[in-house]
Parts: sequence; structure tokens; C-alpha cells
Amino acid sequence: MHGEIITIGNELTSGRTLDLNGGYAAGRLTAAGLRVSRITSVGDNYEMVSEALARAVETSRFVIVTGGLGSTEDDLTSEFVAEALKRPLCLDGEMFDLIKKYVESRDIEMTPSLEKMAWMPDGSRILNPKGTACGFRLVEKGVRLYFLPGVPDQMRYLMDVFVIPEIVSLYNTLPVMRQRIMRAYGLNEPAVAEVLKILKGKTGQVVLGFYPSYPEVHITISLRGESEAVVTQELDRAQEDILKLVGHHVFAIGNEEMEEVVGQRLLEKGMTISVAESCTGGQIGHRLTNVSGSSEYFQGGVVAYGNRSKVDLLAVSGGTLERYGAVSGPVAQEMAKGVRGRFGTDLGLSVTGVAGPTGGTPQKPVGTVHVGLAHGARVLSGQYRFWGSRIQVKHQSATMALDWVRRYLNGDPFLPGI
Amino acid sequence: MHGEIITIGNELTSGRTLDLNGGYAAGRLTAAGLRVSRITSVGDNYEMVSEALARAVETSRFVIVTGGLGSTEDDLTSEFVAEALKRPLCLDGEMFDLIKKYVESRDIEMTPSLEKMAWMPDGSRILNPKGTACGFRLVEKGVRLYFLPGVPDQMRYLMDVFVIPEIVSLYNTLPVMRQRIMRAYGLNEPAVAEVLKILKGKTGQVVLGFYPSYPEVHITISLRGESEAVVTQELDRAQEDILKLVGHHVFAIGNEEMEEVVGQRLLEKGMTISVAESCTGGQIGHRLTNVSGSSEYFQGGVVAYGNRSKVDLLAVSGGTLERYGAVSGPVAQEMAKGVRGRFGTDLGLSVTGVAGPTGGTPQKPVGTVHVGLAHGARVLSGQYRFWGSRIQVKHQSATMALDWVRRYLNGDPFLPGI
Repeated sequence: MHGEIITIGNELTSGRTLDLNGGYAAGRLTAAGLRVSRITSVGDNYEMVSEALARAVETSRFVIVTGGLGSTEDDLTSEFVAEALKRPLCLDGEMFDLIKKYVESRDIEMTPSLEKMAWMPDGSRILNPKGTACGFRLVEKGVRLYFLPGVPDQMRYLMDVFVIPEIVSLYNTLPVMRQRIMRAYGLNEPAVAEVLKILKGKTGQVVLGFYPSYPEVHITISLRGESEAVVTQELDRAQEDILKLVGHHVFAIGNEEMEEVVGQRLLEKGMTISVAESCTGGQIGHRLTNVSGSSEYFQGGVVAYGNRSKVDLLAVSGGTLERYGAVSGPVAQEMAKGVRGRFGTDLGLSVTGVAGPTGGTPQKPVGTVHVGLAHGARVLSGQYRFWGSRIQVKHQSATMALDWVRRYLNGDPFLPGI
Repeated sequence: MHGEIITIGNELTSGRTLDLNGGYAAGRLTAAGLRVSRITSVGDNYEMVSEALARAVETSRFVIVTGGLGSTEDDLTSEFVAEALKRPLCLDGEMFDLIKKYVESRDIEMTPSLEKMAWMPDGSRILNPKGTACGFRLVEKGVRLYFLPGVPDQMRYLMDVFVIPEIVSLYNTLPVMRQRIMRAYGLNEPAVAEVLKILKGKTGQVVLGFYPSYPEVHITISLRGESEAVVTQELDRAQEDILKLVGHHVFAIGNEEMEEVVGQRLLEKGMTISVAESCTGGQIGHRLTNVSGSSEYFQGGVVAYGNRSKVDLLAVSGGTLERYGAVSGPVAQEMAKGVRGRFGTDLGLSVTGVAGPTGGTPQKPVGTVHVGLAHGARVLSGQYRFWGSRIQVKHQSATMALDWVRRYLNGDPFLPGI
């Protein structure tokens, strides 16, 4: 049972924007046990769009189309579809009401370009009758066509909540399809490939997959079957096998981010945290505060980019800085202790490192990073070497620091210094 | 003169890998003044590959095909092409010699799977007779087909060094194609659409486009012409027209991020900055330190999530907090002053707000944000109301705060409090 994906936008065929939507839709459909035969990107151009639509209707069972649904002049997908499929544009009452509500709630005026979004090809049904992300579906010669916005957040939401469940329920022969995502950190691709090789042939019908999602790796297990009970049992078994092999790297089963997992552990333990950041520049605090309710456990932090602020605000001793240098285990430890004292939190977390691309030395090359963690009288630190660009080193450092908190609260015996 | 791109690989249609090659080829061809009408991704499947090739030969002048040229079992592109175009596979002597040299230099054995790479469809010519990245070109019914490896580095190298120069010399009518991107912040889509409507018909041959890139809007102007001088002149005129209408929103012409622009202005003025963040949680520091060389002007900051740290670390007065609340102009001002004093910087930047989704009140609903900026004895603050999720409110707040610095250093008379 296969379908295809059409992504529309001059920004795609001009190479200005990577086709994130095509990849996302393909990944989701594949994970749901469906096959994608083709992903086509075309510009905002009637001839190309109509040709792609006609071909898709001839050869596929379902089609995901993204882009061109907004309020601007370039957004012509509805017009193109109307013309290509000979279905006049009609005003959709539900959609019009949604736009009206949106306009009123923000105290802006209804304009023709906003109203335009409520005109859809005859026979369309809007996908999300209660939300603001617009999208619609129509059936042509038995083929289901889903039209989604090009804005990735909206597209992903509609895809996950409306499109995938509908297609799965229509086209899947076995009634129950379940997938689990296991998010791992600290595993490289070859290591995961090795694991999958070990498991090959041992997981029955369970389909294993893995997807690098820098700096994480996502392992998926999916299975289609007759009943919820059977599918759940099989997936449980596969999950257990995988956890036996790489369990200490798996930080979430599901869609949680590292910072959400850390927040949950802190809440469970009733503990608070503060952060002292050097090379990460504030990213750890930023990520912790992306989680709603983080003010329950996150008190704040100090971004100590220069040495002076390490001494003044974090009480790092000038002697330690001089003897070991700012990028060192002892300084990471003093930063963690210092911020913990400053904010009066249970835990103090710190990072100091060389993000690059300049500033490296033979002894401390670019990517050298120390993580520190203070809890009561206990202070740990560990050294890492990360690879990649400045932004990648920062990202790895922040993720590793957060993972330290997770592992510490889990009592992980492999944590350096334990 | 347009062409198309076909990228081959199960990893693409399963969503395991983003189609980086398609985007790269499209960007390079567009920048060279050529048009890409379509990018198609198909799996390692004869039917889909041959259908895509046949269609491309019918409708395009040139075709870039990537993937499936390696030595593994999945690498079937040459076989598919041979069958689809009825050109038997022949052993290419040049290619065979290259592989032999490679094998000898690494002291490994020649295997059938390595030799396989030397077998190409009849009439092919290898692209890179001296290197190890393999690829070939053939001409079918006057259409030039370029077959490149899927390994991004190799693909990019062959594209830049062999493919683009050859196509440009063959197909370009107007030799010069230039595009400029103007990055704007603080404009919503309907406003930009309005602007473009005003400009329509007034920019000659210049093609206008705009792309929302939350929370920014990118305006592009592009033109193809006879000479660099003519194209530059026309683009300059269009750019001036746009700047007249929305100039104070345009923060960069080119690909710079807001934090890079801010960093450059600070460097030019020889000024330093520190940040006091509440609801943004560290994002401003994180973004400022994404820029290489930011330690020249960024000294650090305080993430003051709770009231206590606002008082202890930023010297915000308890009275101000009590009278106006943590989310208020006076507190934003004291935070900016406080952090500036703490770090001894020229500028102090602050943000305090309600990121949501909880914590809002009728007087201070979710999305209420105050930005503060201190410079010498001068202290400014301004209030905003942002929409969207917690993460969006944080992102808007950080971007607005950074934009304040840019505008302040530019002497923008519209900045609140000036």
C-alpha cells in the first residue's frame, strides 16, 4: 500500500530551503508501516504542480502535499488543485469561522488575503476543525489527497494527529499498528548498526529502525498485528532486548526531549538546580526553561564567559584558574559548587570548554569540554572531546551536561567520578 | 533553460536521511542562473528510477542524478540506467585503472563489487578521470544526464568542479544571475504581502519573493541579465525601494543571523555587553555565543529565574519588585542596570516576561514581555505582547532583545524610550 509526497515551493527548487517536510512525512509514513514510492518537489508553478498531482492520482493510493496554503500571493496550491482537478473553489464555512476567530482574538482586520485561506477546492474537508493550522483533504478517483501547510510545526502537527491515523486506519490490513521511539544519547551510528545486526532475526515481525537526530540517535520498533495485546507483548520483548544492549544510553521512550526527562526526574526527587555555563553560553538554561513548569526546579544560572565573572560570581579561586586553566576539571567543579551556593539549590551543574573554531591548543584542542556537578558535599567532573562545528560542540556539551543530571539522579554507576 | 534533479536511495523515501544532495544541486544550479523544475526522490527500485529517467529525458534539458553508484548491493543505478535507456553496461578502462590504483595504494584486494563500479552504460564518460570520486555523464536524445555519487562530499565536488561549469557553458543564454536575501524582523506576513503588492510592476524584471522563517521574514530579489553591471544596478534599485518601505525591519542583507549582526555592530563600536535573562532562560547568551569571536564583546550574564536572584545578583530592589511585579518595565530597567554593573560592560540587556502556557493574569497575560537596555546613565525599556507557544514566546523575546541592541547602535529613532 504505497503513497507519495509532493512538496511545493520555489524555495525548494531553488535550493534556498531544504525539504524538511518531505523527509518528515516520509519518516512518519514509513514508521507507520506504509510505503512512500516518491517524493517530488516542484515550484509554485501551475504546470509542474498539476503534472505532479495527475501522476500521483494515477499511481498512488494516498498523496501528501505540503506548501502553498498560506495567505500570501505565492500561496497558490488551492487554486492549482481547483484547476487541475476541475473542482471550483468554494468558501468553507468552518474555515472562515476559524479565521474570523483568529482575527478577532488578535484584534487585527480581516483582509482578502486572509479570507483566501477559507476558499478550498470543491469537496474538500478541513483537517483540524478546532485549530489554527489549516489543511484539507479531498478524495479523487479513490485516492486520498492531503494538503498541509509548509510551516514545519503546523505540517508536523497535522501529519501526526490527523493524517497518519486516518491513513493507517484505512489502508492497513492488520488492524493494530504500534510504534515506539527510543531516544538514545551517546551512541554513534556504527554502534547502533552493530546492535541492530545482533538483533536481526531475533525480533520476529518487529521492524527495527534507527534515525540519527544529531546529537541523538532514535531507535524505532514497530509492529502491525491482530490485537493490541499481541502487539504490545512483542514490542515489550523487543524493547527489553534493546535496553539490555544499550539501555544506559536510552534517555526516553517516546517523544520527550532530554530537558523534559531531566525536569521530570528533578520533580520526582523534589530537587532544585542552577547552572554555571561557560562555552555553552546559556544553552543549558535555555533548554531547561523550554519546559513548561521548569520554574518549580530551575532557579537560574550564571553565564561566566570571562575569567573575571567566574571569580566574582561563582567564587572560582584565582589560584585554580591559574594552575589548571579555565577549561579544566577543577574549575568545572568550583563552578558547580559556586553556582549551587549562589542560588541555594540542591544541584549545581557546570560546563567549561573550548567551542572553537579558534582557541584550541595542543593540550586542550577545540572540542575539549569539562562537565561538573555538585550535590551537597559531593562534586563530580568529567572530561569530553566533542567534534564538529562551534554550534555542534555547544550542543553536545549542553546535552551531555543535562544527561549527567539524568544519570546522576538514576544512580548510574558509569558516571565519571562516581 | 531548465533541468531537474533525481535523487536515488531507500534512505530518502523512508525518511531516514534528509535529501541534502537535491537541495545542494538545486541551490548551485539556481545560483548559476539555471532553473530547476523538479526534484524527485525515489527508492532503489527499477520501476521508479526508470520512470523518473524517462520523464526527465522528455521534459528537461539536463538532469542531475545522485546516489546508487557505490560498491554495495543496493547500488544499482548503473544497471537501472543501462536497462531503462537500453545501453548495455561496458567496462570503462579509465575507471577500471582508477579503481586498480586505489586498490593498490591501500593494499587491499580487487573484488567483484569494486570492479562493478567500472561498468557503465554504453556511451558514458567518466567525470573525474583523475580522482577517486566516481561519476559519469551521458547524452540521451540531446539531454545531458549527470550521474553523481550519493556521498555528499563527493557529489558536491563533482557538481562544483565538473557539472556546473559544463552546463553553464552549454545552456546559459543570459550569463549573469544574482539573488539577494533581505532578512527582516518585526514584520508579519500580511504586511509583507502588502509591501510586495505596492512594489509589483515597479521592479522591472526583478523577481520578488518572500519566505517566512519564524520569527523572521526573508525577502528575496533576483535577476538574470547580460552583465554584472546591469544586474547589480537593477538589484540595487529594487533593494532601495524595499528599504524605503520596510528598511527599519531589515536587519541583514545576506545570510547573517541577528546575533551575528549584533556582534558585528558591537565590534565596530568597540563595545561590550552582558545579559540578564528571566523568561528567555539563557537563550540570548546562547545565541550571542553561537557566533565565533563573541568573547570579544560578550562578557556573560545572569539567568535570574526567581525573584531572589534578581535581588541578589542583579541588585533589583525589593521595593520595585513589590510595587510593579517581576514582569514590568521598572524591573527590566533595574535588571539591565544591574547586569551592566556586575559585569562592567558598556551595555546591559535584559528580558523579563510571561512565557506561558501558565502564569498569565488578566493584567499580564501570557506573552507579556519587557525588554530593558542600559548604557551609561541611560536606561530604556519597552513592553511587548508575543503570541504562540512557550518556545515561540521565548524565541520572539530573545530576538526582540537582540534587535534592540542592533537598533540602539544604529540610532533608530523608533526605539521605545528614545
